[in-house]
Amino acid sequence: MPLSKRLAAELFGTFWLVLGGCGSAVLAASFAGPVHGLGIGFVGVALAFGLTVLTMAYAIGHISGCHLNPAVSVGLSVAGRFPARDLLPYIVAQVIGAVLGALVLSLIASGKPGFDLVASGFASNGYGERSPGHYSLAAAFICEVVMTGFFLFVILGATDKRAPAGFAPIAIGLCLTLIHLISIPVTNTSVNPARSTGPALFVGGAAVDQLWMFWLAPIIGAVIAGVLYPVIAENRRGSSQEPVLN
Amino acid sequence: MPLSKRLAAELFGTFWLVLGGCGSAVLAASFAGPVHGLGIGFVGVALAFGLTVLTMAYAIGHISGCHLNPAVSVGLSVAGRFPARDLLPYIVAQVIGAVLGALVLSLIASGKPGFDLVASGFASNGYGERSPGHYSLAAAFICEVVMTGFFLFVILGATDKRAPAGFAPIAIGLCLTLIHLISIPVTNTSVNPARSTGPALFVGGAAVDQLWMFWLAPIIGAVIAGVLYPVIAENRRGSSQEPVLN
Amino acid sequence: MPLSKRLAAELFGTFWLVLGGCGSAVLAASFAGPVHGLGIGFVGVALAFGLTVLTMAYAIGHISGCHLNPAVSVGLSVAGRFPARDLLPYIVAQVIGAVLGALVLSLIASGKPGFDLVASGFASNGYGERSPGHYSLAAAFICEVVMTGFFLFVILGATDKRAPAGFAPIAIGLCLTLIHLISIPVTNTSVNPARSTGPALFVGGAAVDQLWMFWLAPIIGAVIAGVLYPVIAENRRGSSQEPVLN
Amino acid sequence: MPLSKRLAAELFGTFWLVLGGCGSAVLAASFAGPVHGLGIGFVGVALAFGLTVLTMAYAIGHISGCHLNPAVSVGLSVAGRFPARDLLPYIVAQVIGAVLGALVLSLIASGKPGFDLVASGFASNGYGERSPGHYSLAAAFICEVVMTGFFLFVILGATDKRAPAGFAPIAIGLCLTLIHLISIPVTNTSVNPARSTGPALFVGGAAVDQLWMFWLAPIIGAVIAGVLYPVIAENRRGSSQEPVLN
Repeated sequence: MPLSKRLAAELFGTFWLVLGGCGSAVLAASFAGPVHGLGIGFVGVALAFGLTVLTMAYAIGHISGCHLNPAVSVGLSVAGRFPARDLLPYIVAQVIGAVLGALVLSLIASGKPGFDLVASGFASNGYGERSPGHYSLAAAFICEVVMTGFFLFVILGATDKRAPAGFAPIAIGLCLTLIHLISIPVTNTSVNPARSTGPALFVGGAAVDQLWMFWLAPIIGAVIAGVLYPVIAENRRGSSQEPVLN
Repeated sequence: MPLSKRLAAELFGTFWLVLGGCGSAVLAASFAGPVHGLGIGFVGVALAFGLTVLTMAYAIGHISGCHLNPAVSVGLSVAGRFPARDLLPYIVAQVIGAVLGALVLSLIASGKPGFDLVASGFASNGYGERSPGHYSLAAAFICEVVMTGFFLFVILGATDKRAPAGFAPIAIGLCLTLIHLISIPVTNTSVNPARSTGPALFVGGAAVDQLWMFWLAPIIGAVIAGVLYPVIAENRRGSSQEPVLN
Repeated sequence: MPLSKRLAAELFGTFWLVLGGCGSAVLAASFAGPVHGLGIGFVGVALAFGLTVLTMAYAIGHISGCHLNPAVSVGLSVAGRFPARDLLPYIVAQVIGAVLGALVLSLIASGKPGFDLVASGFASNGYGERSPGHYSLAAAFICEVVMTGFFLFVILGATDKRAPAGFAPIAIGLCLTLIHLISIPVTNTSVNPARSTGPALFVGGAAVDQLWMFWLAPIIGAVIAGVLYPVIAENRRGSSQEPVLN
Repeated sequence: MPLSKRLAAELFGTFWLVLGGCGSAVLAASFAGPVHGLGIGFVGVALAFGLTVLTMAYAIGHISGCHLNPAVSVGLSVAGRFPARDLLPYIVAQVIGAVLGALVLSLIASGKPGFDLVASGFASNGYGERSPGHYSLAAAFICEVVMTGFFLFVILGATDKRAPAGFAPIAIGLCLTLIHLISIPVTNTSVNPARSTGPALFVGGAAVDQLWMFWLAPIIGAVIAGVLYPVIAENRRGSSQEPVLN
């Protein structure tokens, strides 16, 4: 596929990841109607994030590989599965998609009487005072490194040509669900610098001040996995050197 | 397959979508028994809607393509995957199925002492005062356009012949679950004019007055996706021109 | 496979369905520990019932076809997919498995201080006063007929040789989850006479008095689907005449 | 694959099982923020445990078979699917991975102000006073034997060469979810001696005193299933003698 079409797919996909994942958090997580207990809570948000990736991986995996995440592109590149020359355009497309997704979410969310975007947090990531459970910077950093590392490990393994064909979107999407089930209380879960950037730009202030961490930690985790997976998985013939999601 | 059998499949499938999706909302979402917290909430309703499509797509995908939704039929037709001459009969079958599904649901729901169909809302869609979160018409309209657009995008991508075979029902069904996780608070989630029409006819009044929006917005979204997907996805050989779910 | 091994598989599978499905309801649905909101509610019970079938369908589908349900065996037989001569032994094995599953569940549940099997309901099915939402006999009857009918319709469709191979256990298991998401408030959800019989024998009294309905209604629904599916699905060449799950 | 790489995969996978499964329980199960009802509860924990196995089975199934559990390795060995000479190294790798997973979890969890590892229970398993629902030793023992037995039965069946190829990780992962939906209230669910050992070493005291049971009962269940499955499943040609997950 020509690069322009692959970038369009990445932009669309990351738009969907932010609109869907952050949208479920902003619009539905703690819905309080006439009856209590209807909101989807962290389980629903975890499911939503995972399903944005699962659905897009089946929809555009054959176009762009469906990274939707700068850390994923970096990790795949380190592992030799994605050409380094495409890294920058992919990441730019992902961030633009994330910002546009957050923009459309802000339009929808603002349609509710009394909605206050900044006070709501707008599904931005954070540590310390901005962590849902007030986790420290150190704990948040470790958590993002480890979670992104295992995310990439699963991506590299499930798209290995020795793994069953066709199932990678299920494994990868549900891995993102799993990661949210664990770590929403710690950082509101990033493992994706583009996903962090979209909402933060709308919230501003401390949300932007903390953005560095949600670029640095996921990329460190991704690089570690990109180095480790081939060491563990490859036999002499190097049979796992296959492009992701194809 | 002869058209008559395909229409019977669409009618049955849309019956199941309304009975199952709206049924979970009406019967089980806010169940209040002797113990609190047993009701399935929005997460359960989101899962139920998605599973009606997932189950039917495996059951009748090979018969009718399992659209169950006028917006899906329109979007597939715009993308060149479904013959325009079959649009009207498919849509009629879908609406009849939706109305019959709502009828059977009303029979079951009325078996509970004190059930008041109109006061319950009967899982009808709405905006403004009739939106679960009182979202404005503009927000509701944007939400339905965008959600249906991505729904069709995922349908077109997951049934592309380059996507892994057999997985489309999972991607499409869980995409509908995802859409509900995001947007139940906004419009009670339609993205399907037939699903909106069934319950509205039983509730009457404002539910019927607002029906126009749940025909217009989903179809606009579907048309946009039907135009966009081929532009992004097709390479010169036009290899994605394949019938849906086969 | 010899009949004796197929019957052993059916017995084991139905044991698992009752232990797992009813077990989740009895042990975990309304768990009240030091922290509120930990119990799995109807969503968790719905998921558990579906997963008993999904897991067993992959584990023993190649041995016995994994019916685990007299109504399923009857419906498959009506549709010409299962030999009538095996109906009685299958049903006997299923009921024995269900009773043994309920027995082991009673042993585990009784290990909790203060557990009262009869007062708990022990996940038995019921209508009227014994319905979780006090639904009338008529509503409960319609509900069981329609839910079992669509269950069989999905089973027949997903195991049709034109449907994608290997996915039937997912479609069928998650269809049972869907059915529970809709109808636990109505009858505690049966759609399976064996599943109803196991717990009822331990509860006794009214639970046994109402058992007739949970044999009659599911079997009526299954027979209707067993007649209807071939009419809708078959083209002249009768290509759908395939044994279930292989 | 050389043994060293298979052991590394087992260590990584079991690390993920403990970090993800126990992590969801410790960090997110009963999260209490400004809004109530956001915590993931037992449903979320059940989903998390299952997804650790589902994701790793796709990621490393082709490397080590993805046992992640001494009872699984023993059961597969009894059934003739895993060489006895590899049992000890596999189990050692699994236990080391579990302890390291618990170590990283303790680092993250301690980043929350006021976290008390011992008082929290740290997702350790237990019976009697240490059972979430105060279930007796006898009930807990029966529960762990039976749950592990069916877990192995599903593993052996879903990896039988007559079962649909590629789906085993879904069946096995969701079986672990199912087992948690049933039995968290009884023992906090082990069915995996390595998973029990990791957190218990950090909690100490009674958690360690009760560890014997979470080695003995799961292994008994696994041995029973390892003997039973081949008896039920094999026809004369013994066609099910295939290595797990490849």
